[in-house]
Amino acid sequence: MKAIVIHAAKDLRIEHRPTPTPGPGEVLVRMARGGVCGSDLHYYNHGGFGSIRLREPMILGHEVSGHVAAMGPDVSGLSKGDLVAVSPSRPCYECSYCLEGAHQHCMKMRFYGSAMPFPHIQGAFSEYIVADARQCAQAEGLTAEQAAVAEPLAVVLHAAKRAGSLLGKTVLVTGCGPIGQLSVLVARAAGAAKIVATDVTPFTLRKAQAVGADQVLNVAECPDALRDYDTDKGQFDVLFECSGLAVALADAIPAMRPGAVIMQLGLGGDMQLPMQAITTKEIELRGSFRFHDAFFTAVTMMQAGRLDVTPLVTHQMPLDQASAAFELAADRHQAIKVQIAFS
Amino acid sequence: MKAIVIHAAKDLRIEHRPTPTPGPGEVLVRMARGGVCGSDLHYYNHGGFGSIRLREPMILGHEVSGHVAAMGPDVSGLSKGDLVAVSPSRPCYECSYCLEGAHQHCMKMRFYGSAMPFPHIQGAFSEYIVADARQCAQAEGLTAEQAAVAEPLAVVLHAAKRAGSLLGKTVLVTGCGPIGQLSVLVARAAGAAKIVATDVTPFTLRKAQAVGADQVLNVAECPDALRDYDTDKGQFDVLFECSGLAVALADAIPAMRPGAVIMQLGLGGDMQLPMQAITTKEIELRGSFRFHDAFFTAVTMMQAGRLDVTPLVTHQMPLDQASAAFELAADRHQAIKVQIAFS
Amino acid sequence: MKAIVIHAAKDLRIEHRPTPTPGPGEVLVRMARGGVCGSDLHYYNHGGFGSIRLREPMILGHEVSGHVAAMGPDVSGLSKGDLVAVSPSRPCYECSYCLEGAHQHCMKMRFYGSAMPFPHIQGAFSEYIVADARQCAQAEGLTAEQAAVAEPLAVVLHAAKRAGSLLGKTVLVTGCGPIGQLSVLVARAAGAAKIVATDVTPFTLRKAQAVGADQVLNVAECPDALRDYDTDKGQFDVLFECSGLAVALADAIPAMRPGAVIMQLGLGGDMQLPMQAITTKEIELRGSFRFHDAFFTAVTMMQAGRLDVTPLVTHQMPLDQASAAFELAADRHQAIKVQIAFS
Amino acid sequence: MKAIVIHAAKDLRIEHRPTPTPGPGEVLVRMARGGVCGSDLHYYNHGGFGSIRLREPMILGHEVSGHVAAMGPDVSGLSKGDLVAVSPSRPCYECSYCLEGAHQHCMKMRFYGSAMPFPHIQGAFSEYIVADARQCAQAEGLTAEQAAVAEPLAVVLHAAKRAGSLLGKTVLVTGCGPIGQLSVLVARAAGAAKIVATDVTPFTLRKAQAVGADQVLNVAECPDALRDYDTDKGQFDVLFECSGLAVALADAIPAMRPGAVIMQLGLGGDMQLPMQAITTKEIELRGSFRFHDAFFTAVTMMQAGRLDVTPLVTHQMPLDQASAAFELAADRHQAIKVQIAFS
Repeated sequence: MKAIVIHAAKDLRIEHRPTPTPGPGEVLVRMARGGVCGSDLHYYNHGGFGSIRLREPMILGHEVSGHVAAMGPDVSGLSKGDLVAVSPSRPCYECSYCLEGAHQHCMKMRFYGSAMPFPHIQGAFSEYIVADARQCAQAEGLTAEQAAVAEPLAVVLHAAKRAGSLLGKTVLVTGCGPIGQLSVLVARAAGAAKIVATDVTPFTLRKAQAVGADQVLNVAECPDALRDYDTDKGQFDVLFECSGLAVALADAIPAMRPGAVIMQLGLGGDMQLPMQAITTKEIELRGSFRFHDAFFTAVTMMQAGRLDVTPLVTHQMPLDQASAAFELAADRHQAIKVQIAFS
Repeated sequence: MKAIVIHAAKDLRIEHRPTPTPGPGEVLVRMARGGVCGSDLHYYNHGGFGSIRLREPMILGHEVSGHVAAMGPDVSGLSKGDLVAVSPSRPCYECSYCLEGAHQHCMKMRFYGSAMPFPHIQGAFSEYIVADARQCAQAEGLTAEQAAVAEPLAVVLHAAKRAGSLLGKTVLVTGCGPIGQLSVLVARAAGAAKIVATDVTPFTLRKAQAVGADQVLNVAECPDALRDYDTDKGQFDVLFECSGLAVALADAIPAMRPGAVIMQLGLGGDMQLPMQAITTKEIELRGSFRFHDAFFTAVTMMQAGRLDVTPLVTHQMPLDQASAAFELAADRHQAIKVQIAFS
Repeated sequence: MKAIVIHAAKDLRIEHRPTPTPGPGEVLVRMARGGVCGSDLHYYNHGGFGSIRLREPMILGHEVSGHVAAMGPDVSGLSKGDLVAVSPSRPCYECSYCLEGAHQHCMKMRFYGSAMPFPHIQGAFSEYIVADARQCAQAEGLTAEQAAVAEPLAVVLHAAKRAGSLLGKTVLVTGCGPIGQLSVLVARAAGAAKIVATDVTPFTLRKAQAVGADQVLNVAECPDALRDYDTDKGQFDVLFECSGLAVALADAIPAMRPGAVIMQLGLGGDMQLPMQAITTKEIELRGSFRFHDAFFTAVTMMQAGRLDVTPLVTHQMPLDQASAAFELAADRHQAIKVQIAFS
Repeated sequence: MKAIVIHAAKDLRIEHRPTPTPGPGEVLVRMARGGVCGSDLHYYNHGGFGSIRLREPMILGHEVSGHVAAMGPDVSGLSKGDLVAVSPSRPCYECSYCLEGAHQHCMKMRFYGSAMPFPHIQGAFSEYIVADARQCAQAEGLTAEQAAVAEPLAVVLHAAKRAGSLLGKTVLVTGCGPIGQLSVLVARAAGAAKIVATDVTPFTLRKAQAVGADQVLNVAECPDALRDYDTDKGQFDVLFECSGLAVALADAIPAMRPGAVIMQLGLGGDMQLPMQAITTKEIELRGSFRFHDAFFTAVTMMQAGRLDVTPLVTHQMPLDQASAAFELAADRHQAIKVQIAFS
């Protein structure tokens, strides 16, 4: 079978690997769609991010859906041919964090396509993968495209859960890449009364408006756009910070009301922050990282029709054009989510 | 001007009262619509409820909207002719509960149309009322019918806030009168993944389905209907108990998952409850009573198009047919919310 | 080895059983102390409680400490001779509740000395038990008597965690058996500003005062004793209801302030409750059942000297006087916690 | 009467002012003790902090206690001669933040001794002040020294309330000035299982140990002292950051466990923070600023003997030696809290 393997920055290869066989409790999934994520792009463009660097070839990819092609013994609840969304979250279920239900902090996490540990954890961008049945969410009623969005949607649902109720709240989203767009969708699904989104490209802002933002602000064209929201010590109850940029976070602080919650989803390095304002306004800045249970909630929510991720999948490209797909995925003038079509 | 005055059970009269004059910070509102509420019906049918009894004639009504007809000095943010939803919540703003922001527990609350204190607090079912400007939510973009639903919607938004995030949750609503219907609407707006509603009349259940319930159960026809949800110690995350009946609450307990939240909105008297199950399943039973800030959130949410209360206003009847309106409002075979049209 | 076996109400026998052998990950514990709990007393006095009845002989006991006598393979962190408190909580670690960290709701819980499942889960009142190493909390620095109090202390710490911060709060404890006494101790350790305890026997109330209650009220002698706390809609922020009696719970409601939290620890059957007051005062009634992690917190807190349970162990009696110990344990005129001394 | 007036950095003068007269609802307080606070020191040493600068002479001081010397009309609950702790928190009680109970964010706050607004809000370091009766907490049973610690204690109780329950938690305190010392005291009173404190002077660390820290670390002598706590992704559940230094905050991050809560009490300017770790560990960084209700809780807790602030008042100096007192207050080799003795 073919797999998409990163060797170094800009060195992405289609390679052949043996098709795996499912063991007890496992299923063989024939891959259908795989979304290109920001972390995939970091490996592709820079060979890693921060202190995390590629040290061996690694199959990329962790936003995937496919069809059950074969099942090992002791698998229940799935049938051959079922469309499944496959969760890349593979905690140990035994460490202290797993035992308290905080699987995202597992001390032995084997998240698909991660160069954090060595040997690296191979990803899911191959024609077939073997997955634990418990990783697979039956996705009947969804398209393969939608099912492959379960992963980034889970990231946002996890953050929204940590943010608390959004019902009736005024919400700001900074950064309108896929996670920002999904934040708009989720904030809308969760009953936010007003949603404002910021970015620097007209394309992403038009999309954010299309999926539910009440107002969009181009902070490249108008750097002071958020200042209208500074009145009365700030107007936003909640911020989903999806850019990972210190400037975006700092720019939002004066517009946050006292006691506001900031969900930091965007991954950046060290940031210079206005701590005096954070302190005196009693802002709550909460990191949010990955997900675990929320993956299944994501599939359920899409199946129930509570939110529609379809407009976010702007492109689908065949496996053989993987490099082109990665190039496109980084272009915020025309792409939100680019998926690889494996079959 | 005319007012709707209750003298005793079934003794509802249209009486003349002098039109009041607004003082500083006050506005004169020409009434447009007034919804008949369950507590109004208690006064009408029984002369009170529990230990609260009518001891003098009282103008009924607290779910009202109208147009600003005149303004006293020192009123800002409102103009003559504005449609306003008028909050019946009039706390003292000085007692210890008000100071901590829990105005609904104000020790000197003067909620419209309440026989709890003596002299009774007169209600709002009259052709004109004088209200504090701070009670009035500017309702531009809404119809008078919608604006008059702000009050019961606020009751449910307040309960939903106390329930915590509903995003992705499985929600049960017991009792499909106006508060139950609004609970369905709000649970839907807040992103509940699945909503099940129970009642005993086909009419209310059809309406619940129309406004967003995924499944409706007639527990008169099928008393064991909820038992399908008892599996794995219970399936519902949250219950909005809107019937005020011990049997409905007790019937739901086995279907609630461990750690579930029960919002008790329905007002009943003493109830026999299965405390062993509540204790061992660690259920959280939370009373929810009235609202304060949520009134303005209710108007905002309707204005933003986040939920549509229109289907719940099943009837509008002129002031002169008040008694007929009250009779109709109690008939769950044909009515959800009956409003008096004052003009 | 000897074991304390209940056959039917009032039929408690000392029987011989083979000494077990520890397997991988297991330890053999030579029992030191075992506290008699309310549920043990229910089996002893009534052959069960509610619908849970003895259907076969069962070793009682779940509040135990002892010394490591032997270890199977793959045990780390414990040494022969170590004093350990042994947690009776043995969840499956695999069901959905375990996966979310709510082990107390495990669908396959094997809690020591429980007739809920059949075959019954045998208890720990025997000269030796084999336990999983993960059940054992190293208890260096504690006496065996103190270590055997870890279990009921964990029950209360679990409830306190669910109650939220008690710092500066006004706390009521109803029922001054062992759980009520520990509630006083924990409320004190958690910084409650004022603690009031109620019961019907002078002995338990004197003890409650000794361990930290600021005021004790004998509601047998003075049934209206709590009425002083009804002012301003109620004075208590938190209630630890440890009696399991409807009358105690109902009597406390008027003294609870709006928004108060009631932790229901006492197990009773159906109860008649004043739901109108619970609803209008927006009281939060939360069941609390057993514990899991809190067992280890209990040992840590005792080791750190944060609270002293010693005064609560009023009696220790040798294994051969088990029946007398059970009789004594039920007598609230002279006993709080009675422990069996196994060695 | 005499007052302590700051004119510019290092220009502190004792000046005469007319003794004020209490109006309705007000009391005249003859000052007893006034604690020198970090913000007082900022005005004294630097003429302000950040963008807040002295623009006119200002009486300093906001940690004060005294005796009721006279009462205006309409004052109840206080008698002449009563010792009172006087809260410097004087919100408007009318703005939107006040209405929701977040008085610390009042848009028209007149907090004693603040150069934030202009004209500046005069402070309380004078022989007499007139205060609203609602600012005064009757402090019977306390010494004037203790009562004057109510203010910084309130700062910490407010932060602790925002931190959630500390019962059984592992707590880190960075910075052992008065606020850090009180954080140790409060964490201890709230049942923290383990408390570690860091600072750079042996004197403050010895004091922290004396008031309840289980371990103290001199990070000047041993910059890596906290690294022992980095195991398993971090060991601390809660951090009270009381230094206002970026280096202290950044140094603590690796020792915080995933999901940990950081209460930022220390006021600094912009800080360079390790956002990647904050994000991936899902740390919650919460600003905490001043207090309102907690002032009264502080007095109650001291009266109930729940914590003893006496060891923190290291020096008391007469009014005429104010400058010397300010110099001493800044010396962390010998002073924690220095109070001015007015009478």
